[in-house]
Amino acid sequence: MAGNLQLNAEGRLKHFLTIEGLSRELLIEILDTAESFLSMSQHQVQKVPILRGKTIVNLFFENSTRTRTTFELAAQRLSADVVTMNIATSATSKGESLLDTIRNLEAMRVDMFVVRHAISGAAHFIAQHTSPNLSVINAGDGQHAHPTQAMLDMFTIRQLKKDFSQLKVAIVGDILHSRVARSQIQALNILGAAQVRVIAPKTLLPAYVEKLGVTPFHNMEQGLDDIDVIIMLRLQKERMNSALLPSESEYFKCFGLTEKKLKLAKPDVMVMHPGPINRGVEIESSVADGAHSVILQQVNNGIAVRMAIMTMAMQAQNGGHSYEQH
Amino acid sequence: MAGNLQLNAEGRLKHFLTIEGLSRELLIEILDTAESFLSMSQHQVQKVPILRGKTIVNLFFENSTRTRTTFELAAQRLSADVVTMNIATSATSKGESLLDTIRNLEAMRVDMFVVRHAISGAAHFIAQHTSPNLSVINAGDGQHAHPTQAMLDMFTIRQLKKDFSQLKVAIVGDILHSRVARSQIQALNILGAAQVRVIAPKTLLPAYVEKLGVTPFHNMEQGLDDIDVIIMLRLQKERMNSALLPSESEYFKCFGLTEKKLKLAKPDVMVMHPGPINRGVEIESSVADGAHSVILQQVNNGIAVRMAIMTMAMQAQNGGHSYEQH
Amino acid sequence: MAGNLQLNAEGRLKHFLTIEGLSRELLIEILDTAESFLSMSQHQVQKVPILRGKTIVNLFFENSTRTRTTFELAAQRLSADVVTMNIATSATSKGESLLDTIRNLEAMRVDMFVVRHAISGAAHFIAQHTSPNLSVINAGDGQHAHPTQAMLDMFTIRQLKKDFSQLKVAIVGDILHSRVARSQIQALNILGAAQVRVIAPKTLLPAYVEKLGVTPFHNMEQGLDDIDVIIMLRLQKERMNSALLPSESEYFKCFGLTEKKLKLAKPDVMVMHPGPINRGVEIESSVADGAHSVILQQVNNGIAVRMAIMTMAMQAQNGGHSYEQH
Repeated sequence: MAGNLQLNAEGRLKHFLTIEGLSRELLIEILDTAESFLSMSQHQVQKVPILRGKTIVNLFFENSTRTRTTFELAAQRLSADVVTMNIATSATSKGESLLDTIRNLEAMRVDMFVVRHAISGAAHFIAQHTSPNLSVINAGDGQHAHPTQAMLDMFTIRQLKKDFSQLKVAIVGDILHSRVARSQIQALNILGAAQVRVIAPKTLLPAYVEKLGVTPFHNMEQGLDDIDVIIMLRLQKERMNSALLPSESEYFKCFGLTEKKLKLAKPDVMVMHPGPINRGVEIESSVADGAHSVILQQVNNGIAVRMAIMTMAMQAQNGGHSYEQH
Repeated sequence: MAGNLQLNAEGRLKHFLTIEGLSRELLIEILDTAESFLSMSQHQVQKVPILRGKTIVNLFFENSTRTRTTFELAAQRLSADVVTMNIATSATSKGESLLDTIRNLEAMRVDMFVVRHAISGAAHFIAQHTSPNLSVINAGDGQHAHPTQAMLDMFTIRQLKKDFSQLKVAIVGDILHSRVARSQIQALNILGAAQVRVIAPKTLLPAYVEKLGVTPFHNMEQGLDDIDVIIMLRLQKERMNSALLPSESEYFKCFGLTEKKLKLAKPDVMVMHPGPINRGVEIESSVADGAHSVILQQVNNGIAVRMAIMTMAMQAQNGGHSYEQH
Repeated sequence: MAGNLQLNAEGRLKHFLTIEGLSRELLIEILDTAESFLSMSQHQVQKVPILRGKTIVNLFFENSTRTRTTFELAAQRLSADVVTMNIATSATSKGESLLDTIRNLEAMRVDMFVVRHAISGAAHFIAQHTSPNLSVINAGDGQHAHPTQAMLDMFTIRQLKKDFSQLKVAIVGDILHSRVARSQIQALNILGAAQVRVIAPKTLLPAYVEKLGVTPFHNMEQGLDDIDVIIMLRLQKERMNSALLPSESEYFKCFGLTEKKLKLAKPDVMVMHPGPINRGVEIESSVADGAHSVILQQVNNGIAVRMAIMTMAMQAQNGGHSYEQH
C-alpha cells in the first residue's frame, strides 16, 4: 500500500509519493509546517541550517527547469547540499539500470532523492527499493501524481478560504492525463472540501471519473456555478495532435477561462493554475493577471511547502527527532 | 531613461544594465568597492558572508561558460545561493513567455537576476518589469551593452595608469557588432579619458561613429600612434561568412596586433582583450602572452568587479543599508 | 617525470595524476587519511569546513555523471565551492585552446582542477602548465590513468584483507583499453601484493603486458585459481563493433564472472568492479549482488578517498600546513 510505504514505524511521513492514503492530520501538519517556513521567507536572510550537511539529489529523468529550480531553492534555503542529475542524458546512456543508479547514489550516502520521471510509479519503485536512511520525494511521475504541487495548492486555498468544509472547487481541463489533477482531487477530498467538480470534454475525462470522488461537468456554465475555487490545468499541445481535441481556439471557446465565464462563479472566487500557463489557450491573459488570480502566490508558497515536506521527511528518517533544535 | 531605471530613489545603483547615463562618481564607487574585494582575494579564505541567504539566478538565454563561471564564482565568494538556468533549452521550450518566467522567479523570492540574452535590451526589459525587491545585472545583451566587462576593463586600466585624464585609448576590431566596445567607449568618456579611438575597417564601424565620442581610424599605423592603451576585440567567425571581411589572414595583416605594430604605440602601452582570444586572428600569440598584455589580470579583476557590483546592487534594494555590518 | 611533478618540494602530494612513481608511504597516507573521512560519514552532519572558501572546478571534457557526482559530493562535504564545466559543449566551441581555458580559470583564483579528458596525458599537461598555487586531480585521462579509482579500490581491499603482502589479485577484462586497470596494477605492485594477474583474451591485452608487473592468463579456470580478490572491468560496447571480440554472449561465456566460476577462487574471495556494471555481459547479476561483492562499498569508499586526496593536495599547496586546525 502506497499509504504505508510513505510512513515510518511511528506513522510519520518518510517518503512523499502520493496524496492517496494519507490522513487529514498529516496533510494539516504539512500545511502548518509550511506556514512557519513562509513567515521565515519574509526575513532578510531566508536561510536556516535545518538540513546542513545533508545531501539531496535531484533525479530528473524528465526535464523540468521550473520544478527543479523550486526544489533546488528549497534545499538551499534549508542549507542542504544539492546535486542535480539529468539522467536522460547521462548514466542511462551508459546502459546502467535505474536500480543500479539508485544503489550507487545510496552508497554515496545521499539522504534524499527528489524524483521526476515520465513513467507512473517511478518514485514508488525507488522508495520501495531504497535504503532505510533515505527519503524519496515525488516531483511528478507520469500521469500518476504530483503531490507537492497539490499541497502547495491546498496551502494557497487555506490561506484565502480558511475552511475547506464549505468549499466548492472546480478543476478544469485535461483531467485524463493530469497528475496534478489526480493529486489535487485526493487532497481536496481528504481535507473535506464540500464538493470537487471536474470540468472537461468527455475525451479528456477518465472513465468512471466519479469514483475519484468528483462530480463531472462538460460545460463551464453549469460547472462554474456557485464555485469558490477554480483550478485551471495546462493544456498540453500534444493533445491537439492526438485528435482528442478539435483545435486550440475551439477549446478556448468552450473551456478557456475568460472574464465573462468568471462571472458564473462566486464573487470572491479564486483562480489557480499550476503553471506554466498558456495564455489564450486555457486562460485569458486578463484573468491570469487579474484580481482573482493567485497563480504567483502559488509559486511563492511552493518553496515553503517543499521546505516543509523535505524537513518532515528527513526528520522521519531519524525516528522522529527534530533537526530544528540544532 | 536607462540612467534613471538603474538607480534607486537615493541615486544608488540598483540595476546594472548599461554604462550610459551613470555618473563619474558612481563608476569610481564601483572601482573603489572592487578594490576592497580584490585585496580580499589574496587571503587564504576568499569567502565573505555579505550575501548569505540571498538567491541569485543566472538567467542565460545565450550560452557562455566563461561569463557564467565568473558570475557564479563571484556569487559563491559572497556566500549567496546561485541557481543557473539555461533558458534556451528549458522553460521557453514549453512556450512560456519571458515575462511569465520572470514573474515566477520573483514569486520564488529571488533577489537578483544575472541576465545574458542575444537580444539587445533584454536586461532593460526585465528590470523595467521586475519587482522592486530585485536587482538585474546585464551580463551582455545582443549588440547593446556588456557593462560589467567594461568596468573590469576600467579597473584594470586604473590599476596601471592611475589617471584617466591623460590617457589615449584605442579599441580595435569589430566595433559595429560589439557590446563590449559600446560599454567601454561610454565608460572611458565618463571617466574622462583624453582620447578614445576606434580602429576598424569601414564595414565594421557604425555610421556616425563620432557621435559615440570617439575618433575613428581605418589603419593601425595612424590609430596606434602615441597610444597608452590598446583594447583588441574578438573577431567573431560569423563576420567572415557574412561578407563583411575578405579573409582571416587579410584581417590579421591589416588589424591583427603584432609585435611590430605594437611598436607604434607608447613604450609602456598596455594590451587588453575581453577574451576568449583568437590567437593569430586579431592578436599575435607573443603579444597576447607578452609583457604589455594584461589579459589575465582583466580576468582576475573580473571577479572582484562583479562582486562589487552585486553587493552594491543588493544594498541599493534595502534603502542603502549596508550588509557588511552583519 | 610524473612522480616528481606530483610532489611539492617537501615531497608531499600536490597533484594526483597517476599512481606511477608514488611511494608506498604516500599511498598508505592516502588510505589512512581516507579512513578518518570515512568514520566522519557515519555522523549526522557529514560536512567539515576543511576547504571552506576554496574553489574547485570540475573540468569535464568527457561526460561522466557518476564520477562528476562523487567529486562534487566530496568537495561539498569539505565545504569547498564547486563549479562544473562541461567543456565539450562550451569554451572549446568558441575555439579557445585548452591552455587559454586553464589560464583564465587560474586568473579567477581557482584552487583545484578535477580533470576528466578523453586524451591520455591531459591532466599531466594541465599540471605542467598551471600556476604553483593550483592542484590538479586526474579523474580519468584517455586510456592512461584513473588514480582515484585505483586508490578507492586499494582502500576497499585493505578494509577486508588488511595485509597486501599475502594477496593474489586478478583483474579481468579489457586490460588493453583500461585506465582503471593500469592504475590498479601500479597501486597493487607498490603496495606489495603477492601476485597481480590479468585475465583477458589476447586481443584485449597490451603487448609485453608482463612488463607492467602482472602475470597474464587467457582463461578464467587457471586465472581465478586460489585468488583472493577479483576485479572485473566494464566491457565497453565499442569493443564489440571494433572486431576485437566475437560477441557479447561469447565474451560472457569465456570471461563473464558467474557463480560457477567464482567457486574457482578462494572461499573468501572479494569481487570488485569500478562500475557502472553491465549485468550479464562481464558479470552475472547474482554475483554482482552476492555475498562476495563489495561493489557498492567501493562507491561509498570513493567519497572518503576523494576527500582525502583533495585535502592532501590542497595542503601541499601551502607548504604542508594543515587546514584541519582551522
